[in-house]
Amino acid sequence: MSAEPAFPVPAYPPPARLKEAGRKPHLDDPVFAMHRGGKIGVAPTVDVADPAALAQAYTPGVARVCTAIAEDPELAGEYTWVSNTVAVVTDGTAVLGLGDIGPNAAMPVMEGKALLFKRFAGIDAVPICLACTDPDEIVATVAALAPSFGGINLEDISAPRCFEIEDRLRDLLDIPVFHDDQHGTAIVTLAALRSAARVAGKELGELRAVVAGAGASGVAVTNILLQAGIGDIAVSDRQGLIYRGRAGLNPVKAALAARTNGAGLTGSTESALVGADVFIGLSSGTVPESAIAAMAPGAIVFALSNPDPEVHPDVAARHALVVATGRSDFPNQINNSLAFPGVFRGALDTRATRITEGMKLAAATALTRLVGADAAPGYVIPGQFDDRVAPAVAAAVAAQARAEGVARR
Amino acid sequence: MSAEPAFPVPAYPPPARLKEAGRKPHLDDPVFAMHRGGKIGVAPTVDVADPAALAQAYTPGVARVCTAIAEDPELAGEYTWVSNTVAVVTDGTAVLGLGDIGPNAAMPVMEGKALLFKRFAGIDAVPICLACTDPDEIVATVAALAPSFGGINLEDISAPRCFEIEDRLRDLLDIPVFHDDQHGTAIVTLAALRSAARVAGKELGELRAVVAGAGASGVAVTNILLQAGIGDIAVSDRQGLIYRGRAGLNPVKAALAARTNGAGLTGSTESALVGADVFIGLSSGTVPESAIAAMAPGAIVFALSNPDPEVHPDVAARHALVVATGRSDFPNQINNSLAFPGVFRGALDTRATRITEGMKLAAATALTRLVGADAAPGYVIPGQFDDRVAPAVAAAVAAQARAEGVARR
Repeated sequence: MSAEPAFPVPAYPPPARLKEAGRKPHLDDPVFAMHRGGKIGVAPTVDVADPAALAQAYTPGVARVCTAIAEDPELAGEYTWVSNTVAVVTDGTAVLGLGDIGPNAAMPVMEGKALLFKRFAGIDAVPICLACTDPDEIVATVAALAPSFGGINLEDISAPRCFEIEDRLRDLLDIPVFHDDQHGTAIVTLAALRSAARVAGKELGELRAVVAGAGASGVAVTNILLQAGIGDIAVSDRQGLIYRGRAGLNPVKAALAARTNGAGLTGSTESALVGADVFIGLSSGTVPESAIAAMAPGAIVFALSNPDPEVHPDVAARHALVVATGRSDFPNQINNSLAFPGVFRGALDTRATRITEGMKLAAATALTRLVGADAAPGYVIPGQFDDRVAPAVAAAVAAQARAEGVARR
Repeated sequence: MSAEPAFPVPAYPPPARLKEAGRKPHLDDPVFAMHRGGKIGVAPTVDVADPAALAQAYTPGVARVCTAIAEDPELAGEYTWVSNTVAVVTDGTAVLGLGDIGPNAAMPVMEGKALLFKRFAGIDAVPICLACTDPDEIVATVAALAPSFGGINLEDISAPRCFEIEDRLRDLLDIPVFHDDQHGTAIVTLAALRSAARVAGKELGELRAVVAGAGASGVAVTNILLQAGIGDIAVSDRQGLIYRGRAGLNPVKAALAARTNGAGLTGSTESALVGADVFIGLSSGTVPESAIAAMAPGAIVFALSNPDPEVHPDVAARHALVVATGRSDFPNQINNSLAFPGVFRGALDTRATRITEGMKLAAATALTRLVGADAAPGYVIPGQFDDRVAPAVAAAVAAQARAEGVARR
């Protein structure tokens, strides 16, 4: 369907192929060199150079700080690192596009996430890779950990378990719980879609969209687009379009069917794309060039699967006005890292008890505003290293937290 | 019983008294200033200055590292931070001398511990303060977390729950589990006692000792002294000496009674001290000067309660040959930080599956050897900032792990 794209990093032979060739994959790969020993560490922020300093930082001095917090728990926010921390929690069941690779193999991604939290928002994030996959056990474990962290970032937990786990933790805990695969993607997608609609000269309310994929991100993107007032939206999974009454729908998809596909379309993703304004791929599947060609004039194509977009962006661009991917090596990268650092920064700064729908919408609005009137086919979302992003998102999220009364400061 | 000692740090008015005076305790206290914002952070160890670096550290490059670990789990030790990490886990039920102050108020101590792990052994330690106190829940939570860490340091969990929790986790997990309040104290106490015996010109096997306190550290100290071949030992709790058949003994104390107090002494700690060679206080109680005066010539007094020793060291020194405390502002500080950094360094370096009794004894022997023939009444244990300590302990622990076949490298 498309020429092999020139992906600078994946071009290196994947481990499986190297293994066949009888070589250890990690011996001459610069990526492995970068990961050696891990990518993060714990660093003291105070100097304990001598016994006097140690007697303040540790026993006996520390006892005074403990006593003060025991008497006034609010002081924990001031005199511990908790208020600047996030646990990045996974069970390793849906890691990147790799699937259920388990907690040990998930760790490099969680460390990477911690790296981004620090780089973009100054947040101390701790990777927590769990040995359990049962929702009850995950909920109990995270609830037990909660006093240690200012927020919980759920990551790479497979659908539909992820929905239940997040819902239950949000109900149990008084700190933000945020499944980034859902809401990070949703925030950035909405932000980019608004800019793209502006480029196309269309209103969000008149767009007809097709979302391929009803996993964590497909469901969350659909929900945020509905909240933002999109005109019409149809969602598909591997069995094709999701419609009311389709046999075998799980509860999450049944609820989705009730809110989407008002026309009751059945059949394939491709069939729904005929005349559609927007395609959003969150599926790990593929879409043929002919389906993109059949979309409405001024079409918007977000082919977000990583590392392989549903349609190669160069191919999509032959027919669509705006093309975005999840990749850093093409224009318009729809990347969660534009959202989660600022979202948590805003939530931690206000000691918000939760991250509301309003706070997510505020984050998306902040991203769209950064692009503003500069919106163009190749610029519907800020770049990952745009230093304005995290502070703008954080400020919008903090303001919304205060407006909704979920802020504790 | 004794003059108020000149404790430089606790001399500052404790929070409760300040509160009565109507002032916030933390506004003008240098200790609180040091703790503001916490004492540790998460620091990247790789630079993600540009999109190319990010594409290696995070998606898409990271997928290759994940895939390699999924195919060969051993690689997690090489390409993640896990092999250099320790979780410092508490439920906040027995924090310092403060008791059950809960997980939030325990955090400053756990951060301090993380500080010491890094300062003395380069280990990345993460404080985990749990919202649960039920042993089943603690065990399940720590077991769920285990893939994220190279070792588990249990901390400030009350007795007798701590014994069961540690035993069960040691059985469940293939990484080191070490309750520092027990074994850290035991290692350093044994090391100091050997040097003290040398100073007194006595053999360990001929010493008669009294241990006041049958909590976590009292039990562990007694156990290691028995393993090391001490001559005779009697243990007391708040009800007095522990002896076979005493009514109401919990299983841990009943087991202790079976191994100690061969003479079947009953009565008070004081009564047992008459003619004893060694007093080891791990009790938060007090011992009168007259009881110390009644000990054998060349007596050894380790008054280890913090922040208030069972007997003031200056008072004890009127009668005893060697006096040690847990305090940094007196000679001979018996401090866990002489043990746990090196113990975990040695265990992590060898990827040991557990910390055996032999490894603990090896750690104690290494500490005694550092003092060696320089042993003197005021020098039975190295100082906390003696740079030889952690490497010597680590080397001894690693060698023992290899000798016992619990090392994986």
